Amino acid sequence: MSLIRNIVVSGGTHGNERTGVHLVKKWMENPGCYDALCKTASVQLVLANPEAVRLNRRYRDHDLNRAFSQTCLDASFEPYQYEFRRARELDRIYGPKGENTKTDLILDVHNTGANMGYCLILSARDPFTMKASAVLTQEFDDAWIYYQPEERSASPYFGTVAKADVCIEIGPQQHGTIDARIFETSEKLVKRYLELADEWNRGELQKRAPIPVKVYTQLRDVGYPKPQGGGPIQAMIHPNLKGRDYAELKKGEPLFRTFDGEDILYEGESDLPAGAVVCPIFIDEPAYYEKDIAMSLTVRTEEMW
Amino acid sequence: MSLIRNIVVSGGTHGNERTGVHLVKKWMENPGCYDALCKTASVQLVLANPEAVRLNRRYRDHDLNRAFSQTCLDASFEPYQYEFRRARELDRIYGPKGENTKTDLILDVHNTGANMGYCLILSARDPFTMKASAVLTQEFDDAWIYYQPEERSASPYFGTVAKADVCIEIGPQQHGTIDARIFETSEKLVKRYLELADEWNRGELQKRAPIPVKVYTQLRDVGYPKPQGGGPIQAMIHPNLKGRDYAELKKGEPLFRTFDGEDILYEGESDLPAGAVVCPIFIDEPAYYEKDIAMSLTVRTEEMW
Repeated sequence: MSLIRNIVVSGGTHGNERTGVHLVKKWMENPGCYDALCKTASVQLVLANPEAVRLNRRYRDHDLNRAFSQTCLDASFEPYQYEFRRARELDRIYGPKGENTKTDLILDVHNTGANMGYCLILSARDPFTMKASAVLTQEFDDAWIYYQPEERSASPYFGTVAKADVCIEIGPQQHGTIDARIFETSEKLVKRYLELADEWNRGELQKRAPIPVKVYTQLRDVGYPKPQGGGPIQAMIHPNLKGRDYAELKKGEPLFRTFDGEDILYEGESDLPAGAVVCPIFIDEPAYYEKDIAMSLTVRTEEMW
Repeated sequence: MSLIRNIVVSGGTHGNERTGVHLVKKWMENPGCYDALCKTASVQLVLANPEAVRLNRRYRDHDLNRAFSQTCLDASFEPYQYEFRRARELDRIYGPKGENTKTDLILDVHNTGANMGYCLILSARDPFTMKASAVLTQEFDDAWIYYQPEERSASPYFGTVAKADVCIEIGPQQHGTIDARIFETSEKLVKRYLELADEWNRGELQKRAPIPVKVYTQLRDVGYPKPQGGGPIQAMIHPNLKGRDYAELKKGEPLFRTFDGEDILYEGESDLPAGAVVCPIFIDEPAYYEKDIAMSLTVRTEEMW
């Protein structure tokens, strides 16, 4: 990425993920909180899904953060579901998604009920978001890098309306609630992104020495055990796995426990090179029950960013 | 209470409180799980709010567990909201609420996101539920007695359709999810209530020596700080208080933290006798944001039950 001229900080893309909601509201009322942090760029704030924020629900009609694929944005009909309409509106204001977008960087603040700490999700190997996120893993005890490569046009996430984006997933925080300690740390972390964007624009961030990082790259999602043909879940996250996001999972270790007390084991991967380290994340995220995701498996690598 | 002839075990009164949902479903499919535990009574199982269970939401139109006051049940019009109709249906099947009810005991299994352990909520000083719950505080590490006296006719809770009831509030478990360790302990605890009902019917439970118990009696609810005239919350549960359900709260200790980092302190009670011990519970329960309850304050006493 060249210079970062336009930044959007967004909260409430999911209405019940309240860290970003309260952060954006606070900053809207007190521009002094952020307006001196990145003098080299324009910083805008947005509550992405105000209707869901009002309801304190993830969404009203449809998950907004699954509505930004080019196909969704371009559909010829006028969508009746609130979030599809809102996605087009956000795309008009901050996009249009693609090379001519008005926005260089979106920092989209989310929460998860899983034990994910401060998870910095990168959808592309963008030089600024890589370097800045690497710096933050040094500065924050519980910050992690999750690389979820996305074909940008097909990606349904709000952040992909900009040239680059970081989806900041913060947990564990129960949906609909607000944790004070998490709020305060999150505010510091988002502020640091703005300062690092300024450092980037001044050509200084690029000069920092390479930083060793652990990168968790998306491998595949794992669903809950269900009967063939569908139906209710037949097992729960295994107690040994609960809360152990980012820890290595080895073949033969327990994944699930059935309601009758039987263990279901991890069978390993057939198509990974020997020595690959598999780590589950988003373990038991409440919002993913409806998406039938019990956890996401990642492969951990060590890189210099 | 005299003999306990008819017991109802219910789950899913709130559809996203999944311990009771899965417990009732499991037992419905495998009556051997429970049918020998209390041979002296008939035990029935019910998913109280099947529509909310299907949606994995607290309720569809209205909180079912606020729909059982005599006024609600007796209203002359046919309610259009699902839960008010369902409340009348449950009252017809298991009630009618009042002296002529068909049901002696309802064990209603709930979850909370707060750090409440296995909270046994008694709505009356009923001899069986007191004695049995006292036994369970001895048998389970993390079982607690919360006494929330209710005028039975006015009480909106499902359990009050029976002559006696225990609302079992289990947490922390995030709404919409199911925790394996909690599920297994909860199943044991509900089974023990059935065995103790049998012990009661055989006249044996009554003969047990008095048991020392800590009783947390409802004092008042505390709302989140809001602007005069209403509006969004202005502060979060204080980090020092988070998760400290049942611990003593003293005058001058912090209750809330504003978004600007200021502490709001507990001012104490003006109308309690000297030496009264005040303990908050249901701290930051997600479902109570909409009810504007940040926590409930109780007074802790030591009794022999």
